[in-house]
Amino acid sequence: MNAPLPKHLLPEIQQRETPTELIDALKARFAERCSTALVVREQHGRDESSFALPPPSAVVFAQSTTEVAEVVKLASQYSVPVIPFGVGTSLEGHLLAVQGGISIDMSHMNKVLSINAEDLTVTVQPGVTRKQLNEEIKSTGLFFPIDPGADATLGGMSATRASGTNAVRYGTMRENVLALEVVTASGEIIRTGTRAKKSSAGYDLTRLMVGSEGTLGVITEITVKIYPLPEAISAAICSFPSIEAAVRTTIEVIQMGVPIARVELIDHNAVRMANAHSKLGLREEPLLLMEFHGSPGSVKEQAELVQEIASGHGGQAFEWASTPEERTRLWTARHNMFFAALQSRPGCRAISTDTCVPISRLADCLLDSVAEVDASGIPYFLVGHVGDGNFHFGYLIDPEIPEEREIAEALNQKLVHRALSLEGTCTGEHGVGLHKMDFLVTEAGDGAVEMMRTIKRALDPKNIMNPGKIFSL
Amino acid sequence: MNAPLPKHLLPEIQQRETPTELIDALKARFAERCSTALVVREQHGRDESSFALPPPSAVVFAQSTTEVAEVVKLASQYSVPVIPFGVGTSLEGHLLAVQGGISIDMSHMNKVLSINAEDLTVTVQPGVTRKQLNEEIKSTGLFFPIDPGADATLGGMSATRASGTNAVRYGTMRENVLALEVVTASGEIIRTGTRAKKSSAGYDLTRLMVGSEGTLGVITEITVKIYPLPEAISAAICSFPSIEAAVRTTIEVIQMGVPIARVELIDHNAVRMANAHSKLGLREEPLLLMEFHGSPGSVKEQAELVQEIASGHGGQAFEWASTPEERTRLWTARHNMFFAALQSRPGCRAISTDTCVPISRLADCLLDSVAEVDASGIPYFLVGHVGDGNFHFGYLIDPEIPEEREIAEALNQKLVHRALSLEGTCTGEHGVGLHKMDFLVTEAGDGAVEMMRTIKRALDPKNIMNPGKIFSL
Repeated sequence: MNAPLPKHLLPEIQQRETPTELIDALKARFAERCSTALVVREQHGRDESSFALPPPSAVVFAQSTTEVAEVVKLASQYSVPVIPFGVGTSLEGHLLAVQGGISIDMSHMNKVLSINAEDLTVTVQPGVTRKQLNEEIKSTGLFFPIDPGADATLGGMSATRASGTNAVRYGTMRENVLALEVVTASGEIIRTGTRAKKSSAGYDLTRLMVGSEGTLGVITEITVKIYPLPEAISAAICSFPSIEAAVRTTIEVIQMGVPIARVELIDHNAVRMANAHSKLGLREEPLLLMEFHGSPGSVKEQAELVQEIASGHGGQAFEWASTPEERTRLWTARHNMFFAALQSRPGCRAISTDTCVPISRLADCLLDSVAEVDASGIPYFLVGHVGDGNFHFGYLIDPEIPEEREIAEALNQKLVHRALSLEGTCTGEHGVGLHKMDFLVTEAGDGAVEMMRTIKRALDPKNIMNPGKIFSL
Repeated sequence: MNAPLPKHLLPEIQQRETPTELIDALKARFAERCSTALVVREQHGRDESSFALPPPSAVVFAQSTTEVAEVVKLASQYSVPVIPFGVGTSLEGHLLAVQGGISIDMSHMNKVLSINAEDLTVTVQPGVTRKQLNEEIKSTGLFFPIDPGADATLGGMSATRASGTNAVRYGTMRENVLALEVVTASGEIIRTGTRAKKSSAGYDLTRLMVGSEGTLGVITEITVKIYPLPEAISAAICSFPSIEAAVRTTIEVIQMGVPIARVELIDHNAVRMANAHSKLGLREEPLLLMEFHGSPGSVKEQAELVQEIASGHGGQAFEWASTPEERTRLWTARHNMFFAALQSRPGCRAISTDTCVPISRLADCLLDSVAEVDASGIPYFLVGHVGDGNFHFGYLIDPEIPEEREIAEALNQKLVHRALSLEGTCTGEHGVGLHKMDFLVTEAGDGAVEMMRTIKRALDPKNIMNPGKIFSL
């Protein structure tokens, strides 16, 4: 069902052979936890991106850091790629075996190793998902705020420098990962960072690994910050006469320094899809879905200020989600947006954009792009972590109609170049993966990308760590 | 007056020769802006650390990125070290020409290039100091919070991943640098990051450069976040019967999630020195100097809560700094602490420690160390960004008495090993420089330090960028 990947997106596909000796060695070591069954390999050879490629040669289900190190050492011996796999929610083809190789499934490494409530930190294995983590720390009165739409693993979220709806207040994985354990390309186990809140001790290897998309090492342990559950939480919906009105409201809220916890733009298409999928019954107009965290007094202050700003832009009176259940229902609908959209056009695939611009440029970037996609006739939805200047168009293409992909890619091209001209980035939170390698060069410049390549070559001389992602070598 | 550097701290001093041809070429290009005068070289061959070493062979006063690139290219041609110099406030010997070479003085590159008030960002040249920046953006109602004690340059602060008293609320240079321009070891000019608030576009070169202490490139432009001046600011002093009481108060405040903007521990020694230097007339007991930012309501809420916690630990009633002038006077005294301490023992040098531990370990780490230094008889002061778990002992040694340095180094050794055993770091904000190379290996492990070395070798194959710092090669 997947569309074949256009050639220009993959300039350097070169499947490497996986020698039988390696497969034999892995099977001897891991027995039934090394699978070569087609169905298992296929499941590990795709993600939520719209690309189709041959699956990896084998999948190893690792249960410990030592085991990961063993797999990497064996793969290194044969110069065969290794691709860490969490739960497969990447949107950018990160998990695809573009050069063949071994998928290391990390989902069995899913223990919360230690909760340090008094320091607001928690250490987990990489297969722990964000919802699992929040479930396991619920009794402490603390929570982990980073929430990409999918229930991704913390390993995957670290590898892609993920964020989500709470990032406007709590930051992204960049700000929230304190320390890592990593298996390097030679199969060595290293630690980066400590549980101290800050440090000036040498190169920031933690942040080099965060966002490196598996190309520099396999993340096997993660220490992240957690936060006290706010004394008061209020969520509200505010409908607007236009996307522009909603965006102008957001810009003003951020520029006023309101410590809003979440401010999500949902366009009328997305509202319609969410209504159908999650039975919400919302007015099908552009809206902001907001959340305020703090003491009761501060939440009240924030909400009043934002309501005032919204009214100035034609926003309706806030509709409050008064119970925790109602709040959860709204945010679940927001997180299920991607799937609601897929359901709205049976058989379609979604191509998700991910530009992020300085907040003052948000209206310029967004409104022209809305006009373009409206004119194209491609069905789409628009959602955005607009408080961060980050938004996603989802172009819903029919994979059987190559022209639709071409139109969608052309729209994305225009959008990205617009965002870059406005001092933004091609990817706010999804990562580069396979899809944005050209954009990265345009954004960062040849010199900076060459510096990334130099680091990659130095740390992974055999190019076995998730090769073919971020940049060509 | 400086103490000679003990041999074990500098295992690999090897002054490289600076060929006359290079000096001639620099003089031909930069005329009077290339100085070989001894007084100028000596001024650029030292910092606030207690080390004495031969000065660099020449100092070039750069006026543009292109000029920096020219110097680096020339130096690279002769494999001669280059050392970027801001205003010389490093505490760890970062600016010392341990292997000889050329000092590039960046202080003339001191323009604020653009203020983007609507995005809360500002782009500056590296020679801009933190006070200058705040002066230049004052009219916008915004401010830059990062405040190491000295009026350091933003280039130096980026290079050492500096922080200061506001970090507990606003983060460190790690969290506040959005983008950089960097001259690489080959003299190429690259850009890292954008003005977008977040990005997943490839390796995080920005954060690799932040804290790299000049060893990977020369930072020639910096984009940082700035913040709206809070509607309300209140500063208060609270005296305690013991250091332990002050520390326990701090731990509780942080664990409650109070968004306090500053919480500084000042021990009775430091209070005495500050009283003498800044005529403060404070009660000579351990105290917390605090600041609350927010709306008037939120500031009141925070202060009441903290007063309640403090009272529970025997803290006195808050003494408020009610006017902005009084507040400035207190914080200036705090920032001048280092100099107040030097003045308290004429002719002394200060060896400053910089450990940082998870907040729950703060009392364990601090109290035992206080007992040790009290027992040693070395005069000292203790100040701390205790909300971050970071604190500084200043051991005031007589440079003419080698035993005093030995005792101080032994105290620091014990302190660092204690901090590391409590999951902390040897340096919260000063950097590794010359003084903490051994500690870094203990803290990060051979594997991680070897990864740093591998990156350094790959990006600076001739080892000309501030060589001999962070690690030996």
